[in-house]
Amino acid sequence: MRVALQARSSNKDWLACCRERGHPRAVQDGEEMVPVDELLRALESGDAETVLAAAENIHYADLAALYENLDDEQRERLLSVIGPEMATDVIAELPDGLIEEALGHFKPAQLRVLLGNLSDDDRVDVFQVVSEESQRRFFALLGPRDKELTRNLLKYEEDTAGGRMTTHVGRITADMTVKQALAVLRRDREDTETLARIFVVDAEGRLVGRVRLRDLAFNTWDTPIRGIMEEASEFILATADQEDAARTLSKYDLIVLPVVDEFHHLLGVITYDDALEILQEESTEDIEKLAAISGEQSDVAYLNTSAVEQFHRRVIWLVGLAFVSIGSGYVMFRFSGILQQAFVLALFLPMVVAAGGNSGGQAATMVIRAMALGEIGAGNALRVAWKEAQTGLYLGLSLGLAMAAFISLILPHLAVETGAGFGFIRLAVAVAVAATVQVLSATTLGALLPLFARAIKLDPAVVSSPSLASTVDVSGMLIYFTVAGALLRW
Amino acid sequence: MRVALQARSSNKDWLACCRERGHPRAVQDGEEMVPVDELLRALESGDAETVLAAAENIHYADLAALYENLDDEQRERLLSVIGPEMATDVIAELPDGLIEEALGHFKPAQLRVLLGNLSDDDRVDVFQVVSEESQRRFFALLGPRDKELTRNLLKYEEDTAGGRMTTHVGRITADMTVKQALAVLRRDREDTETLARIFVVDAEGRLVGRVRLRDLAFNTWDTPIRGIMEEASEFILATADQEDAARTLSKYDLIVLPVVDEFHHLLGVITYDDALEILQEESTEDIEKLAAISGEQSDVAYLNTSAVEQFHRRVIWLVGLAFVSIGSGYVMFRFSGILQQAFVLALFLPMVVAAGGNSGGQAATMVIRAMALGEIGAGNALRVAWKEAQTGLYLGLSLGLAMAAFISLILPHLAVETGAGFGFIRLAVAVAVAATVQVLSATTLGALLPLFARAIKLDPAVVSSPSLASTVDVSGMLIYFTVAGALLRW
Repeated sequence: MRVALQARSSNKDWLACCRERGHPRAVQDGEEMVPVDELLRALESGDAETVLAAAENIHYADLAALYENLDDEQRERLLSVIGPEMATDVIAELPDGLIEEALGHFKPAQLRVLLGNLSDDDRVDVFQVVSEESQRRFFALLGPRDKELTRNLLKYEEDTAGGRMTTHVGRITADMTVKQALAVLRRDREDTETLARIFVVDAEGRLVGRVRLRDLAFNTWDTPIRGIMEEASEFILATADQEDAARTLSKYDLIVLPVVDEFHHLLGVITYDDALEILQEESTEDIEKLAAISGEQSDVAYLNTSAVEQFHRRVIWLVGLAFVSIGSGYVMFRFSGILQQAFVLALFLPMVVAAGGNSGGQAATMVIRAMALGEIGAGNALRVAWKEAQTGLYLGLSLGLAMAAFISLILPHLAVETGAGFGFIRLAVAVAVAATVQVLSATTLGALLPLFARAIKLDPAVVSSPSLASTVDVSGMLIYFTVAGALLRW
Repeated sequence: MRVALQARSSNKDWLACCRERGHPRAVQDGEEMVPVDELLRALESGDAETVLAAAENIHYADLAALYENLDDEQRERLLSVIGPEMATDVIAELPDGLIEEALGHFKPAQLRVLLGNLSDDDRVDVFQVVSEESQRRFFALLGPRDKELTRNLLKYEEDTAGGRMTTHVGRITADMTVKQALAVLRRDREDTETLARIFVVDAEGRLVGRVRLRDLAFNTWDTPIRGIMEEASEFILATADQEDAARTLSKYDLIVLPVVDEFHHLLGVITYDDALEILQEESTEDIEKLAAISGEQSDVAYLNTSAVEQFHRRVIWLVGLAFVSIGSGYVMFRFSGILQQAFVLALFLPMVVAAGGNSGGQAATMVIRAMALGEIGAGNALRVAWKEAQTGLYLGLSLGLAMAAFISLILPHLAVETGAGFGFIRLAVAVAVAATVQVLSATTLGALLPLFARAIKLDPAVVSSPSLASTVDVSGMLIYFTVAGALLRW
């Protein structure tokens, strides 16, 4: 029996997190908390037999999560006890960064077993993340069939449909009967990732249709496949982006999406669980880019990255943006005359500047997310800009009015003086105009920048959000001092 | 034949977007672009027969996307032509906001057909999004069995596993043979959402195991189910959060996850396509909250929302944060004495302030995303804070050093004078110290704020990111003027 694990145990952080998540099993079944506990205790005491017994009761996805949270010595011990067979599934679930090290624990003979056991798409993933030297070493350990398969799959870029697909797919031909088809599928079933959809190919291996296993199960044995197959109307080219594949699976609620070459030969399939993974990765990447965090999204859990790694992913943006901000400082420095004559203006300077960053960020986020979900593209740039300009105008006017009301009605009672040759009403007008212009321009810019970035083939999320904030800081200073200078001549 | 659509056509925006996405069909098959074109042309000319013929060739997910982009008159015409039967699938795919209006196009007799045709989970979704009055009206149209089913499902909150599940699941008992099981499943198959997993229940309807359709298809007819069933070790309570259900499906690569009540009765299942939808919704929501955009994530495509709707989702945060920013202005106003004596300090004021916002935002984003992915919780608060404090120290020191180098080595050559009783070296030290303190404190605060928000049951993404920026703006001003005042006494 395999159970999805939960536990009280010595591995505090990880357990706290599992508990936190309210994972279904945790709630109701005290007994099943035992295997993880047992495993951790046995790992510490070095009791190999108990480790093995406990590991057998834990789902491999949980074993992989557990592995991530062990120290080097415990990892070594765990892998040596469970051996290459059981380790295969666990290693396939590990984050990229831990795979090479994990494989390093095995001897060549064990590696041969492990690499042979991996499903073809997982094996290609392994080859894609290890060093070139390991790649050569591992490749030499493969059997001749696996060698060719791996070589073929490695032709596709990691982030394409071809790079993600598995070739283990149920394949039959249209001239078979249900009985013949079932016989073929029964023979291949151990090797087949999913039988939820079975694909029909012609003599040249070109995709011609699909049947569902239920159609085979519920029809008489002499029914010809030709009579029950449907057209396979959704498919994707092997060279297409993996994100397109994931979106197609998601949009049409597919369990599997066939992958074909330009001659419509069936090469393999992408499955629903790949789609889930791809879409999660892409979301995390977008979120991180929006916050000026660089680099490939790491699939190592946050707590397992070091402070130094975190530092590396953030420092370039932070220092780069700081130098851009000196631009804002320069504007302030240049306009110091205005500020020195009426220091009351300082009260609203940060507000006008920040309102640009906030409204521009809102607009950029809406547009970037809509682009990521495939809702808009460069072709709609004008319509998007127009909508955001309208939104920006409403937002700017609202903010301007709110500030004007505050300055003319409340500020005079707060023991503040304008300290210069203008009254609160003129100050209110100047601040309101500056705020409106700043929000209107920042919102429009926030919407256009991602579209422009995409038009020149840059990543919208990376380019837009961090750069935007610094840009509208500078423009905000300029707008504020220009408007104040013009409207408050005293 | 149904084809996933693509097209040249009059509906420019939507088509531009489809092309942009590089949807698989668009690339390779000129002929299949015709149905959409045809449909749109026929809708304009009012040719009902051609509309119907074209609609029959279009996947319902594409028809729903097309519907979203039609004007009111075209929508009315399309629905009246395709009738309640074909409209059922289309309406189930529509964004929540369009469902009530779409149903309004049908007469009671047609609605009876349409509501009866909806799968039980889609029907509950409809009831959850329409007005109370429509709810009553629609409910009266249901057959007695559907009435009871709908009433039962409406008991669960919309965002729980129970609120998302379908009750149409393959159910057999352990004492059946393969032949009996196949007979039961064949009888129910039209009604069953998926046969990828079939669940075994006892006489009281409690979940005891599962079999795969392939196990039935590949075993002899007299095999007892008891002999081939596996334990159903993953399941979820109906009252659990839908996000937990989605994460469980994703973690264990499940096609279906059984939903049970507290007595372990099998109530229904959540399927992989629900998981995809749930996880996408949650990601979009988090991204929007991080950018200070309020309200439920709208599932209407961006281009189909009005500027006024966009305005409503952003204005509260924008104006609220603006008033917080007046706090920064007040600090600047109070410390105007220091600034007036050495206006060169203005050069680096925006930099120190912005560095806090940037580094705090990076930290908050990493923590919020890790929390959303279930990697960390309140139990790890100390470890997270410690890691971020370290990261913040490295980041702060790097920024401080970069600024010190710039001020002491480059600034003197840029025709700027400190204009006060201190030299560039002292200015460099003051700016470097202020930048380091600001980044260190903002990073730590950025990590702690989401954890604190969760501890007091607030949404980390909503509370942290927008409030953080305004908070560290104020603290940045204070830090800068305090450090400068202390180190640059002249």
